[in-house]
Amino acid sequence: MDTTTAIARFDEVRADTERLAAPLSPEDQTVQSMPDVSPTKWHRAHVTWFFETFVLAENEPGFTPFQDTYWFLFNSYYEQVGPRYARPMRGVISRPGAYEVGDYRRNIDDRIRDLLDRVDEGAFAKLAPTIELGFHHEQQHQELLLMDIKHVLSLNPLQPTYAGGPVAGAGTDRLGWVDFDGGLVEIGSADGGEGGGFCFDNELPRHQQWLEPYRLADRLITNGEWLEFMADGGYRRPELWLSDGWGRVNAEGWDAPFYWRELDGEWFEHTLHGTAPLDPGLPVCHLSHYEADAYATWAGKRLPTEAEWEHAARAYEVVGNLADRDSFHPRAAGPATDGLRQLFGDCWEWTSSAYLPYPGFHPAAGAIGEYNGKFMSSQMVLRGGCALTPPGHTRASYRNFFPPGARWPVTGLRLADDGRRA
Amino acid sequence: MDTTTAIARFDEVRADTERLAAPLSPEDQTVQSMPDVSPTKWHRAHVTWFFETFVLAENEPGFTPFQDTYWFLFNSYYEQVGPRYARPMRGVISRPGAYEVGDYRRNIDDRIRDLLDRVDEGAFAKLAPTIELGFHHEQQHQELLLMDIKHVLSLNPLQPTYAGGPVAGAGTDRLGWVDFDGGLVEIGSADGGEGGGFCFDNELPRHQQWLEPYRLADRLITNGEWLEFMADGGYRRPELWLSDGWGRVNAEGWDAPFYWRELDGEWFEHTLHGTAPLDPGLPVCHLSHYEADAYATWAGKRLPTEAEWEHAARAYEVVGNLADRDSFHPRAAGPATDGLRQLFGDCWEWTSSAYLPYPGFHPAAGAIGEYNGKFMSSQMVLRGGCALTPPGHTRASYRNFFPPGARWPVTGLRLADDGRRA
Amino acid sequence: MDTTTAIARFDEVRADTERLAAPLSPEDQTVQSMPDVSPTKWHRAHVTWFFETFVLAENEPGFTPFQDTYWFLFNSYYEQVGPRYARPMRGVISRPGAYEVGDYRRNIDDRIRDLLDRVDEGAFAKLAPTIELGFHHEQQHQELLLMDIKHVLSLNPLQPTYAGGPVAGAGTDRLGWVDFDGGLVEIGSADGGEGGGFCFDNELPRHQQWLEPYRLADRLITNGEWLEFMADGGYRRPELWLSDGWGRVNAEGWDAPFYWRELDGEWFEHTLHGTAPLDPGLPVCHLSHYEADAYATWAGKRLPTEAEWEHAARAYEVVGNLADRDSFHPRAAGPATDGLRQLFGDCWEWTSSAYLPYPGFHPAAGAIGEYNGKFMSSQMVLRGGCALTPPGHTRASYRNFFPPGARWPVTGLRLADDGRRA
Amino acid sequence: MDTTTAIARFDEVRADTERLAAPLSPEDQTVQSMPDVSPTKWHRAHVTWFFETFVLAENEPGFTPFQDTYWFLFNSYYEQVGPRYARPMRGVISRPGAYEVGDYRRNIDDRIRDLLDRVDEGAFAKLAPTIELGFHHEQQHQELLLMDIKHVLSLNPLQPTYAGGPVAGAGTDRLGWVDFDGGLVEIGSADGGEGGGFCFDNELPRHQQWLEPYRLADRLITNGEWLEFMADGGYRRPELWLSDGWGRVNAEGWDAPFYWRELDGEWFEHTLHGTAPLDPGLPVCHLSHYEADAYATWAGKRLPTEAEWEHAARAYEVVGNLADRDSFHPRAAGPATDGLRQLFGDCWEWTSSAYLPYPGFHPAAGAIGEYNGKFMSSQMVLRGGCALTPPGHTRASYRNFFPPGARWPVTGLRLADDGRRA
Repeated sequence: MDTTTAIARFDEVRADTERLAAPLSPEDQTVQSMPDVSPTKWHRAHVTWFFETFVLAENEPGFTPFQDTYWFLFNSYYEQVGPRYARPMRGVISRPGAYEVGDYRRNIDDRIRDLLDRVDEGAFAKLAPTIELGFHHEQQHQELLLMDIKHVLSLNPLQPTYAGGPVAGAGTDRLGWVDFDGGLVEIGSADGGEGGGFCFDNELPRHQQWLEPYRLADRLITNGEWLEFMADGGYRRPELWLSDGWGRVNAEGWDAPFYWRELDGEWFEHTLHGTAPLDPGLPVCHLSHYEADAYATWAGKRLPTEAEWEHAARAYEVVGNLADRDSFHPRAAGPATDGLRQLFGDCWEWTSSAYLPYPGFHPAAGAIGEYNGKFMSSQMVLRGGCALTPPGHTRASYRNFFPPGARWPVTGLRLADDGRRA
Repeated sequence: MDTTTAIARFDEVRADTERLAAPLSPEDQTVQSMPDVSPTKWHRAHVTWFFETFVLAENEPGFTPFQDTYWFLFNSYYEQVGPRYARPMRGVISRPGAYEVGDYRRNIDDRIRDLLDRVDEGAFAKLAPTIELGFHHEQQHQELLLMDIKHVLSLNPLQPTYAGGPVAGAGTDRLGWVDFDGGLVEIGSADGGEGGGFCFDNELPRHQQWLEPYRLADRLITNGEWLEFMADGGYRRPELWLSDGWGRVNAEGWDAPFYWRELDGEWFEHTLHGTAPLDPGLPVCHLSHYEADAYATWAGKRLPTEAEWEHAARAYEVVGNLADRDSFHPRAAGPATDGLRQLFGDCWEWTSSAYLPYPGFHPAAGAIGEYNGKFMSSQMVLRGGCALTPPGHTRASYRNFFPPGARWPVTGLRLADDGRRA
Repeated sequence: MDTTTAIARFDEVRADTERLAAPLSPEDQTVQSMPDVSPTKWHRAHVTWFFETFVLAENEPGFTPFQDTYWFLFNSYYEQVGPRYARPMRGVISRPGAYEVGDYRRNIDDRIRDLLDRVDEGAFAKLAPTIELGFHHEQQHQELLLMDIKHVLSLNPLQPTYAGGPVAGAGTDRLGWVDFDGGLVEIGSADGGEGGGFCFDNELPRHQQWLEPYRLADRLITNGEWLEFMADGGYRRPELWLSDGWGRVNAEGWDAPFYWRELDGEWFEHTLHGTAPLDPGLPVCHLSHYEADAYATWAGKRLPTEAEWEHAARAYEVVGNLADRDSFHPRAAGPATDGLRQLFGDCWEWTSSAYLPYPGFHPAAGAIGEYNGKFMSSQMVLRGGCALTPPGHTRASYRNFFPPGARWPVTGLRLADDGRRA
Repeated sequence: MDTTTAIARFDEVRADTERLAAPLSPEDQTVQSMPDVSPTKWHRAHVTWFFETFVLAENEPGFTPFQDTYWFLFNSYYEQVGPRYARPMRGVISRPGAYEVGDYRRNIDDRIRDLLDRVDEGAFAKLAPTIELGFHHEQQHQELLLMDIKHVLSLNPLQPTYAGGPVAGAGTDRLGWVDFDGGLVEIGSADGGEGGGFCFDNELPRHQQWLEPYRLADRLITNGEWLEFMADGGYRRPELWLSDGWGRVNAEGWDAPFYWRELDGEWFEHTLHGTAPLDPGLPVCHLSHYEADAYATWAGKRLPTEAEWEHAARAYEVVGNLADRDSFHPRAAGPATDGLRQLFGDCWEWTSSAYLPYPGFHPAAGAIGEYNGKFMSSQMVLRGGCALTPPGHTRASYRNFFPPGARWPVTGLRLADDGRRA
């Protein structure tokens, strides 16, 4: 990457965020519908703060913050940067408004471009990794922005839509299986730190793991298959559930995936295109880890480990139903192939692996080291990306993570099973 | 009131609401900062819904609602009108936005005017009480709109202001006392139901009460006097407090009135004009009933009963620092007079009376009967109005009420004492 | 009262407590089933602590506490005596055990008797009011001990009983009404402070109140009448309820009085005699204020004010189904008379009056002043006593009080109505 | 194991429970000090219920339960056995009392012995695994009984002791390190299912894992070393903590291990022997996983994985400071050796491994399958046993587990580090 490329990619990533926010009114951009969700304008400001804090503050001559208070308001969780505004209160911040956040963005954009224009090669080499991290950070928030506004709109009885057009249905062939031998395999990013493609620190270091033979389902579980699970008492049979999951089922009255609604005996699904009749051929989505695990138990199968998933996915090109298709919803798997379908895009796939450091993992020094490592507790790994993931933001070694009870992300389920030793 | 007057007053009240909302951005109007607070645009829509539901729906030929869903979204608490959107979730409703609420208002305005234009005298006589209730209802919400946005802005570290100009300070003479004989007195509105001025149902029926001789302080307690209470350990001495109050002091860490902030040893106060240095001559405001009661105990005095207050206030004209002065904050009492100062406006005054029905009280039939009666439990009466109260919306018999722990309303404190029998 | 009488009454009151606790195992005496409830052995120790703290500590030469830690453990809410053990944690205190509490009681008993034996007349005159307060305080806790253990046992699926014998049923005549003229009446204890019978400070000072003409039902509402309310949708019709009450109905799923249980379509009632089939002729009990108020609204009537109740009760002798009858449950009203039935005993009767100070009320100085006054907030007055009230512990002017949502006390309902002016 | 051995071990295990409960009064045995804790008499009854349910009910001819209600009361979490009493309410159950639980135990003991006396060899072979599971289940509860009563007594200001005698202090040599090569190793019980020693299902199947070279500290971290961490701001530096851990530090005000108390500048520790001055040479205990992890980060090290721990521990005999020594508290490590000290006993050692199924794990069919598998979510593995663990109840492959925030178990910390490749 040179400075010209950097500026081009910067412009592109920054414009993508604004394009995704464009259909949302100032009021839409203000709401925080639950503590996990952040307002759209907060996302727009926070990713800007990231560039301001980690790029400008450390590199711009005579740096002064755009606004002292923004420093406090738009810090997400970086303890080492200083105090921050309480997360569950983000929806209380009416000002800066959506347009003022635009001003903030333009100011920082200009200054970043200016900085990149002027730096010499040595300084750029020092800057480049943080700039690149900023791109990927902003892409993460693009995905979150969409997941979050989906939740906001779901609570509005006016049933607003984010995007036009129907949810794309299509035939889904029956589920097949693909076998893997396992053995001593390499896991983790091959590129990281070696001048190749970008990866987050949690994808490193590349290391060996022993895998027993295993099989993976060749596609995601569908709404239609989920209806069979429900018809067989899936949400009423404790023997299928992890204990914590069964507790949630009862405490919160779960009886269907998060965004399903029953109306006069018919099932509907809240989507970014509005409320749509449930299509049995589409992947089931918005499941907690507990639900995914219960389904696997019911099916006599299990979830894949993250190593199994990654080892299998290595062979595949990173293409799929990602955010650039503007579908904003998982699509049907289509006809069977010899291999795995729907690996990238559609739904983040729950694994049976807890989110923990790889052997030899060490977070970066300073505040940037808070990016990933400190969340390695009580969360589960998901793999593959979803229909809201920006292209370029997922890969075989990418480790996403959520608490096992999270249902508002776009999460789905691929079955795994033990294989036979040759 | 004839239809011409009705239309004129309708236009005036409706315009007042929009004028008060005008300084607020769409984002400001969307936020609900705590369950007690409602978003500005919700207030604007709800008062419109009130006219639509109680006037148009029952009187407009061929009535259809402006929007079915608004029926559900903008019902505050009228159980008999049907289901309603959960109060603590009002801040999640990004749509209709501030401008769409304007459309709703204009539509209902036109239809109300149209209805009033056409009705004959008999039909108008039937309509008139509900129309008038609608005026006073909207005025109540004008006051709440200001109290609520004050809270919203208080949580924003940018310290936004609602209105320009400084808080008006001025000298405050020392506190004097005015004596009353008591005896068998009449309490409650004299006008209600007899063709005179408007009153709410909770001000009726007028009835007798026996009062012992008593005295009232001739003005409100000031910030300066409150500082003395604090300096004497007011927030640390349990013997001064009601048990529930002491529980709150400890659970919530109360050590000053709600909107006071200490900065480098100096006290400041959050106001609708921004953060201002504390003026010792201004009335102390944003107190809970518990704090008011503790101060009175500390001072060796007590709070007035609502009957004492009303009996005393009867003799005074309803003038004072109300919302039409655009001061939006309590003012200093000014020089002593022979009588009571600051009775109307400045701060709602806590009484020692629980909010209960007057002897012989019966709520109206139907949903409109839910206006006042069903809240007569675990609340305390306040009297007199505040700097955010629209003129015409308070009087000697007016009964305001809040739970004893409420601090976000504009509440203050006038001392009372037992008198001597002649 | 002289010292001989004092010792005799002391012995009697103290023995009563132990007699009431005798059927309870050490384990029964240890349990706190909810924060409102205290363990039996805590009650036994706390009333002992009261004598130790307010009588011995201030009067015994060379006083030292029985055990320093008990000072801390058995203080209920007297802030001025020092820190105390958190109320919701009383059930965690396994030691001192039930027998050790017996040791504590015997030690303080001996020392009190000893003190009373020795004091001269002047010192006794100074002591006597506190000793007498101690008697009445212990009687209050005798009642609470029974109410509390009733709750503890109610949660045990083994359905243990506190006392043998069936609940006493009997015929209940139809409800009649008794008229009262009202006018300027005197309310409050006539005896207090004048050498007559004992009263609590909250029954003072005697003062005048104006009452409109009113009527009282001549007996309590029965289980059978409550079933009619339920059959008419009583728990499902919001228009009958105070707003706070309707909130509790929904949040806590109320659909019958607190201790009612439905089993195969039949109603049963948990009593201190075990689970008994519901007797339609017995008074309904264990109602919240909200339920009592909703029933009155449904019946087109209202609850009495405490002044109405007291004014009516003045004419009656204090006899009824109190704790000395060992019935431990409300009894049927029996045949109609010319006057009011079931005034004293059976069930504490909810009034429509908030628990507030009488005009001119001032709590005593020091910790003993915390006895009543500091609870005068957000509670409602009940009158008359119940089947668990020790005789001698209730009277026409006695003011009991509970929060409006309390259901575990033995509470019932007498209707009132406006009378006609002569 | 034949029936004679089985009866002998049964008698021994059952007697051990009663011996451990013997110092506790009926009141002590009744208390539940927090939802995680169970009353002593509940433990005594539940382990009895386990034999009744899983051995007698399925094997005793003409079986009837000792008491139908016990079936409901003493089921811990076996959903498939039927409904059960809510866990947080165990402290409300005063009856059956401690002595009645003794009756229950004796009845089931007699019937188990009777059954074992009579069964033929084939039937015994079928029974034996469940009987043996019952032994280990009861031993688990012996440990919990002690951990739980430690918490109960800790909240009592009388500072009761469970056992006499001082906490055993002794010298502790400086911390050394032991190196391991790693490679492809075998993990999990070698004995399970093959007629060898007992193991739980979660220790199976034995399987291969790849380990990088690593090092383990040769002993546990001491109180003295923990004081250094505290002195260096350990509880105040967010960069040392996992995000969830830092949340708990702040929400719950953690500033020292769970049972430490500061008094006039000196540190004390609550133990089963009472409150003792903190001994710097003893292992630090009652840490959450978060605290253990923060210390490791501070020390520039990490926690061991469970596979590293197990691979290292395989070489050692299972001896140490376990419950048979009646020390009931961790002891000092003593002089250094060539190898690892304090592996078994003293403190359960937190690992960095989430509690997840081993590859190929399948829980048993039926209710007994709920024993372990359903808890494999959001918990961390601990290894080694503690001073309250019965001998015979731990081994190199034993997997204990607790949520990362648990502090009331006897938990400690051994450091690990990456090794160098040869």
